[in-house]
Amino acid sequence: MNKISVKECASLLKEYDNYLILTHRNPDGDTLGSAFALKGALDLLGKKSMVRCGDSIHPKFSYLWENIDNSEITFDKIIAVDVADKKLLGEEFEAKYGDNVFLCIDHHMTNKEYAQNLLLEDRAAAAAVIYEVICQLGVEITPEIASCVYTGLATDTGCFMFSNTSPTVHRIAAEVMEKGADYTLINRLMFETRTLSYIRLEQMAVASIESHFDGRCAIMTITQKMFRESGSNSGECDGIASIPRKIEGVKIGVTIREQENGRYKVSMRTIEPYDAAKICANFGGGGHNAAAGCEFDCPINEVKVKLLEVIKAEF
Amino acid sequence: MNKISVKECASLLKEYDNYLILTHRNPDGDTLGSAFALKGALDLLGKKSMVRCGDSIHPKFSYLWENIDNSEITFDKIIAVDVADKKLLGEEFEAKYGDNVFLCIDHHMTNKEYAQNLLLEDRAAAAAVIYEVICQLGVEITPEIASCVYTGLATDTGCFMFSNTSPTVHRIAAEVMEKGADYTLINRLMFETRTLSYIRLEQMAVASIESHFDGRCAIMTITQKMFRESGSNSGECDGIASIPRKIEGVKIGVTIREQENGRYKVSMRTIEPYDAAKICANFGGGGHNAAAGCEFDCPINEVKVKLLEVIKAEF
Repeated sequence: MNKISVKECASLLKEYDNYLILTHRNPDGDTLGSAFALKGALDLLGKKSMVRCGDSIHPKFSYLWENIDNSEITFDKIIAVDVADKKLLGEEFEAKYGDNVFLCIDHHMTNKEYAQNLLLEDRAAAAAVIYEVICQLGVEITPEIASCVYTGLATDTGCFMFSNTSPTVHRIAAEVMEKGADYTLINRLMFETRTLSYIRLEQMAVASIESHFDGRCAIMTITQKMFRESGSNSGECDGIASIPRKIEGVKIGVTIREQENGRYKVSMRTIEPYDAAKICANFGGGGHNAAAGCEFDCPINEVKVKLLEVIKAEF
Repeated sequence: MNKISVKECASLLKEYDNYLILTHRNPDGDTLGSAFALKGALDLLGKKSMVRCGDSIHPKFSYLWENIDNSEITFDKIIAVDVADKKLLGEEFEAKYGDNVFLCIDHHMTNKEYAQNLLLEDRAAAAAVIYEVICQLGVEITPEIASCVYTGLATDTGCFMFSNTSPTVHRIAAEVMEKGADYTLINRLMFETRTLSYIRLEQMAVASIESHFDGRCAIMTITQKMFRESGSNSGECDGIASIPRKIEGVKIGVTIREQENGRYKVSMRTIEPYDAAKICANFGGGGHNAAAGCEFDCPINEVKVKLLEVIKAEF
């Protein structure tokens, strides 16, 4: 495994002519935006490439490849973008390509170093790393490439709201907006569009919120019945676990989600000095200071009792 | 009335020593951030100033003046920031100060030119204009000033999500983040904190959503009963009118709010080519292409019939 620089990465890309570009499974705006931005740049260099994903891609992202020929090609080399671990290629793609990735471009400092060459930069989004590579390649940043890069930056930072947002991210956003990124459309599609079924699910979930310890802890419950009645599915409720923590005064926000197999998945969001990872570790879970999770295999009331016991000790 | 440049504005500020800085009524993050950023810069120049507002200020903004002496002073000159019309000072302040404003620093191109000197720049936030003035004054951008400027930028652009967000805004955000703006705290307070009463109100409002014309129009209703039952109030539901338009497929989103006097206030949000201002003009209302409003003095069912008739003609 070679760790390489942006400059070395650009040189390497120029050496070969036909690339398969892979994204991670459960594809999000950053892995897709990065992949299609890179493909756009390779197209301008006269090279052939195709972007592929082990999972299906949500149609809301279709603007990313609208004017692009992404048809089947014969490839020499495999590139993975925003893929920290070959397992994240998905089972089929891992088996097919996992041990043969020529180049990985990533921003996860936990990258498993499975690729022959790794460009790893500590950025908020993989798209920020890809942007540097494209600038180094010396190709024009077209409006299409600009929109792909903007998509990655905006989605991985919650539209510049999360604490991972950096001055660098804002500066690249400014540059790609000047190059024609359609940020109005992208922001609307990524952040302002929800299905009615999701809105209904959120309404039911919010109705379930219980407040504990003088409002310092809020617990929200999402059941399989709510999924059925709202018509929603777990695929469209990524952000829902952040709701309890958003309530004024709440330091520890808990979302309990009933799984199809009857188990309960807990997502915890905390405000300093409360440590979500530490609390969840009591139940064999883990994560980060501000966001962590764990699982339970017991009735919902027992889940709550166990959680509240540990949370009580924190206050 | 003199229209002045950023440079002339900085010179003017250096001429006098004691300033009253006024914000607009219903003070938001931009008018307050701008006012306290300017006060911070005047403090560094050794001048005396105080920020005052005709309305009470929400306590969530208190970090803006935490380390600042904002006590009563005797002033020579009055400055208004982010105040497009002297009426927006509020009744009492308009009567007291409205005809005597020495300098207005603003970003609304509709500014009524009521001040003796006007610095008007077409920016997404008044804080972007204030930032240019502070740079021109040559004082250090302290972390406190940086946080004030960031607050104005972020709140007036919906955390860089609205279409008014520009490359300039992103670049200033990058600069004030480097100067120590506490963007993590500010984003949490401004965008991630909601009262439980507001969350309950939103839940009831969402339950009321009706879908029309194959899902292209959604109507949400908020009644006085919902305010009473949720414990919420109109002061905390600024963003609620954007909900119906966020539903996938909706082109015209309508929010009908029952007023205390029994009248109905309608807020309309549309996606191109539908023109909210044109539709609302049918009922004596107005606004912008994407966001407009009007009022009705008839029963709620009649309000809906009248609106749907005009909306039907649009599709």
